[in-house]
Amino acid sequence: MSGNSFGTLFKITTFGESHGRAVGVIIDGCPPGIEITEEEIQKELDRRKPGQSKITTPRKEADTIQITSGVFEGKTTGTPIMMIAYNEDIESDDYLDLKDLYRPSHADYTYEAKYGIRDWRGSGRASARETMARVAAGAIAKKYLKEKLGIEILSYVEQVGDLKTNIDFEKVTPKQIESNIIRCPDSKIASEMIKLIEKVRDAGDSLGGIIKGVIKGAPPGLGEPVFDKLHANLGKAMLSINAVKGFDIGSGFAGVSMRGSEHNDPFYIDEGKVRTKTNYAGGVLGGISSGQTIYFRVAFKPVSTIKKKQQTINTAKKQVFLEASGRHDPCVLPRAVPIVDAMAALVIMDFYLVHRGKSE
Amino acid sequence: MSGNSFGTLFKITTFGESHGRAVGVIIDGCPPGIEITEEEIQKELDRRKPGQSKITTPRKEADTIQITSGVFEGKTTGTPIMMIAYNEDIESDDYLDLKDLYRPSHADYTYEAKYGIRDWRGSGRASARETMARVAAGAIAKKYLKEKLGIEILSYVEQVGDLKTNIDFEKVTPKQIESNIIRCPDSKIASEMIKLIEKVRDAGDSLGGIIKGVIKGAPPGLGEPVFDKLHANLGKAMLSINAVKGFDIGSGFAGVSMRGSEHNDPFYIDEGKVRTKTNYAGGVLGGISSGQTIYFRVAFKPVSTIKKKQQTINTAKKQVFLEASGRHDPCVLPRAVPIVDAMAALVIMDFYLVHRGKSE
Amino acid sequence: MSGNSFGTLFKITTFGESHGRAVGVIIDGCPPGIEITEEEIQKELDRRKPGQSKITTPRKEADTIQITSGVFEGKTTGTPIMMIAYNEDIESDDYLDLKDLYRPSHADYTYEAKYGIRDWRGSGRASARETMARVAAGAIAKKYLKEKLGIEILSYVEQVGDLKTNIDFEKVTPKQIESNIIRCPDSKIASEMIKLIEKVRDAGDSLGGIIKGVIKGAPPGLGEPVFDKLHANLGKAMLSINAVKGFDIGSGFAGVSMRGSEHNDPFYIDEGKVRTKTNYAGGVLGGISSGQTIYFRVAFKPVSTIKKKQQTINTAKKQVFLEASGRHDPCVLPRAVPIVDAMAALVIMDFYLVHRGKSE
Amino acid sequence: MSGNSFGTLFKITTFGESHGRAVGVIIDGCPPGIEITEEEIQKELDRRKPGQSKITTPRKEADTIQITSGVFEGKTTGTPIMMIAYNEDIESDDYLDLKDLYRPSHADYTYEAKYGIRDWRGSGRASARETMARVAAGAIAKKYLKEKLGIEILSYVEQVGDLKTNIDFEKVTPKQIESNIIRCPDSKIASEMIKLIEKVRDAGDSLGGIIKGVIKGAPPGLGEPVFDKLHANLGKAMLSINAVKGFDIGSGFAGVSMRGSEHNDPFYIDEGKVRTKTNYAGGVLGGISSGQTIYFRVAFKPVSTIKKKQQTINTAKKQVFLEASGRHDPCVLPRAVPIVDAMAALVIMDFYLVHRGKSE
Repeated sequence: MSGNSFGTLFKITTFGESHGRAVGVIIDGCPPGIEITEEEIQKELDRRKPGQSKITTPRKEADTIQITSGVFEGKTTGTPIMMIAYNEDIESDDYLDLKDLYRPSHADYTYEAKYGIRDWRGSGRASARETMARVAAGAIAKKYLKEKLGIEILSYVEQVGDLKTNIDFEKVTPKQIESNIIRCPDSKIASEMIKLIEKVRDAGDSLGGIIKGVIKGAPPGLGEPVFDKLHANLGKAMLSINAVKGFDIGSGFAGVSMRGSEHNDPFYIDEGKVRTKTNYAGGVLGGISSGQTIYFRVAFKPVSTIKKKQQTINTAKKQVFLEASGRHDPCVLPRAVPIVDAMAALVIMDFYLVHRGKSE
Repeated sequence: MSGNSFGTLFKITTFGESHGRAVGVIIDGCPPGIEITEEEIQKELDRRKPGQSKITTPRKEADTIQITSGVFEGKTTGTPIMMIAYNEDIESDDYLDLKDLYRPSHADYTYEAKYGIRDWRGSGRASARETMARVAAGAIAKKYLKEKLGIEILSYVEQVGDLKTNIDFEKVTPKQIESNIIRCPDSKIASEMIKLIEKVRDAGDSLGGIIKGVIKGAPPGLGEPVFDKLHANLGKAMLSINAVKGFDIGSGFAGVSMRGSEHNDPFYIDEGKVRTKTNYAGGVLGGISSGQTIYFRVAFKPVSTIKKKQQTINTAKKQVFLEASGRHDPCVLPRAVPIVDAMAALVIMDFYLVHRGKSE
Repeated sequence: MSGNSFGTLFKITTFGESHGRAVGVIIDGCPPGIEITEEEIQKELDRRKPGQSKITTPRKEADTIQITSGVFEGKTTGTPIMMIAYNEDIESDDYLDLKDLYRPSHADYTYEAKYGIRDWRGSGRASARETMARVAAGAIAKKYLKEKLGIEILSYVEQVGDLKTNIDFEKVTPKQIESNIIRCPDSKIASEMIKLIEKVRDAGDSLGGIIKGVIKGAPPGLGEPVFDKLHANLGKAMLSINAVKGFDIGSGFAGVSMRGSEHNDPFYIDEGKVRTKTNYAGGVLGGISSGQTIYFRVAFKPVSTIKKKQQTINTAKKQVFLEASGRHDPCVLPRAVPIVDAMAALVIMDFYLVHRGKSE
Repeated sequence: MSGNSFGTLFKITTFGESHGRAVGVIIDGCPPGIEITEEEIQKELDRRKPGQSKITTPRKEADTIQITSGVFEGKTTGTPIMMIAYNEDIESDDYLDLKDLYRPSHADYTYEAKYGIRDWRGSGRASARETMARVAAGAIAKKYLKEKLGIEILSYVEQVGDLKTNIDFEKVTPKQIESNIIRCPDSKIASEMIKLIEKVRDAGDSLGGIIKGVIKGAPPGLGEPVFDKLHANLGKAMLSINAVKGFDIGSGFAGVSMRGSEHNDPFYIDEGKVRTKTNYAGGVLGGISSGQTIYFRVAFKPVSTIKKKQQTINTAKKQVFLEASGRHDPCVLPRAVPIVDAMAALVIMDFYLVHRGKSE
């Protein structure tokens, strides 16, 4: 268990701290011959980058990605692809007052407990800044899946606080998702969400929410029983994203109240293809994709960094009060959408390569 | 990705089909010198075995485990521990009528799509019978964690259908859990759950529910950022259990409606120890255990095998009707409790060994 | 690092001690649809089994293999294949006098140093009896490679003590190898080798030697740079066999005395195919197969178990003398030939599946 | 199998091509709290860098390493350490004439066969330039092993062409090794080796040789049976170095001519410590370190790049002649010494952490 790697045949390893020199990733095992440019990757990164709208953190980072290896004359070569973005806005003095205390519900205390040492500048390695590396890697997987295999991945904000859209995920388009700064394809609810975030931010507080992930066009057969079930690895991928506290697939937690006779998805044949009338399974049966749309939910807790005064302890184990001043997002959901996309793409890509390898 | 292995330093690999010759497991990496007997393992297996009560499947299996290697004169030797249970009640004729069709919400179709071949006898490898192997391996991990490290793992049924207990998980005891056949420590709700299961079973239908998992006494420092976060691997472990559709930790899905100022868990010092006043985090910060109690929920869908008539397709891709007659559980929750225990023990054990290896 | 597993997509995990209940293996990741019978596997095992000729150990073991899972109606299903052979001739009393001492050049001391405990019966897990499991797994890989891909693996005894054959490995046939009990395809040298082994055995001593491994028909492209080079993983596989102390490929150790101008293998085109005039590289360039024959040498030390009186220490760390009486081989080479075959097959099979997975 | 990673708990992943933007490495799993500076790492890199003496390639590379993450205030933090060196002397025009042909005994042909595409500039990823990344990672492992555990790793040139030193490896010091440009601690033979290399270089040809590796002070118990034996993983590590064709440990290939009674190493007690009178085993019994000195040999073929005219084929599969003009080493041995050191350090470090994790 390496901690900083994910995947088997399409394997990524990320590095970098929030206020260190750089953040980046190596992809090991990318199939050769894929056309890829830094611009394409940048597009996905721009969806994650700070300062992109009035409801995100004002930290100024261009997040400019460089590909240093593994791409030759515009194509992947099958060798490791390294991508790096140097950090720019690293005023670590902002964090000096946090050096000697453990912020509530942050990883300060646990990193120090685990390692005996921590980079206290902007959460160090525990910062969500690390997810930039995932988005860069996921951009390549996402492109491959779409162009070579016709698999489309799209995620959107389904809930912020108690505000929730009931839009049909089968009909959501990428364009709808990108049509507003909250990345909720239901424009009416989106406006309300934005207002709510602004209100909560102005009160010095923060909000959680739910992102819905959708994977269309995955062929039957992806997923490796029994431990590496499609939804088990997908769940792990999502739970590894900062601030995520829950994951479910298909009917998920709501399904526990149903009866088997309601919940079972009857098979039928539609133009020669195996389909199910309902899809409570969420596109996965026995850990293997069924060919139906895969959909899942990812629950994000409210951001831990708030401006309100809080009680906590310092490294000398004394009680202190904390009034944070650092830059932060009042709600991570809009910037987390491309991260969910990326992690989903990495999971599906890896399953695809492994399945291709093992199948007769 | 091997599919049938779980863990890095404490690594298990399971084998076996529901109606094949045997089901079993290899543990590779078990620390040497642990006293262990077949009887101790059998005790955990008996909590999972079929036919244990009136609300479980009548399939008759003693699930008698044999240790064939890795234990010498009553102690583990550090070499691979193989444990096997031969199947007994394998009347595969019961399943002959299922040979040529795909049962709704079962893995029949996806296994055939993936492999081009499937063992149709009682779901073959996709059967929950495989989890017996996990329970056997988990029994050793559970013992080690408890006796060497003082870490206690206990799970219980929190919800069946819409019936839910609100009992405080911090106070639940193993004895309470084992005091009734549904494994819900709240005896009043337990009786109602049993009645509900019987009613639904008699109607030829099935039920889902939620198991709460609790890990007490884990020291701070377990979990490997950033991909192998404690709750990411725990989530994967739970999602790999048959019929599981959701996982959350701490506040989980409920936490999305909270504000940061409510959800943050203030640190304080209690007799020299770092504690938090609330524990919405569920004992994990930044993917690393904080020393607080770890608690999580696992959502099980209603069992797919029901006696009601259902529409489905056969392998010739024609519409057919199915009236299942095989033996099955109307609700898997009571038998799934030791599986949740086992998977939690495997996750924590592996994190413990990896942490010990890497720490300075 | 699990220790007892080998491979990534075609992954084996072995278990069992020399005088425990059983020895066996799980193959995880075997492609589905391969026809396989216990008889086919038994044939390879019979080449390894004890007591097969006058120059091998008299231990009586039928090594009867059972497939307990992963094969259905004569074909692999893609699920884990478990194979087990129960031990029969386990008179551990033979080893009672070895319980409290460390035999020279055996693993007794190091197992105890590592684990603090050891199964002293017939070397326990350190016994070459474990390799039976490898041969069983390798038999399936060997069959797949030959029948599906036209890749043939054959090994033979090239040297025993100082007796060496100079036969051209490109022309050796399986039939020649099996034509005598030493498995040296050069019948004249084979007779001398047998005589030498008998002479040394009668003197209570033991002998080492070299096995040549040959892989014909491997397509270009197998092997994963830079750490998992074809010959790096092949070397690891061979060095993991009991008593092996050296490995080289192509020109190997002899090549160090050559000049680049001699050693370079000129490319040419032969009926449209890329070939090399010489093959000092041994069929591997930059860690990737070139399409030429892969050939390598595996050096075995003389067997550690001898009948001569030896000085050693006991577990109380006192000097003692040892006169071994247990059954053993005076020279492991003839029985090691199928083990080399098996390990080569496992390496190539795994590379093939990984390459198929990752390639565009 | 990721190809570009090595290790389990101390895991490295390298990236970069010879004439791409940069070469580098991520270490995932380095214990926290190790003091490390770029200067210390640079010292090891300087031993490998081109242009260091009259007998190495004139390519001008400072190989200046930057640590971008995982080190904070001079100490490792337990998070991934990324180190990168940007390439400077990348006149790829030098290689334009090699773009369309496959050099004999180079990886040009096999990379193209495997990936369908290759970076032809200076061998791309197949260049030994990649080993710079290994040396950087190994420098940290080497320091940890020496300072925390008292394990010393030192390698030296034992043979060049037919010139061989018989110096006692137990007595060789780092200072002796660094006392001449060939890194052979026997100054008389060293002078002859240098002369031989110059002579062969002037003739437009190249030379191979043998490096001896020595590991002193390793405690008993390192190595994981049965597949991850200490010498199996060490062998793999060495065979993964460019131009290596062979590996043996202890008596190695020479041992095959010995009798068991000669080859067995008698145990005795020396001041309370378990020692052996001889050490033909090379410090490893049953794949586990015994506490004796570990020593091994690594065989390097003569460099493939020579100035003599050679016959080969081009990518259009026509016969052509090649007269190479690029910069190269006539003999890689002196620059390979720190690479052998590094790989040995990585192997031992990983075994140490895994052993610490699993041990009771």
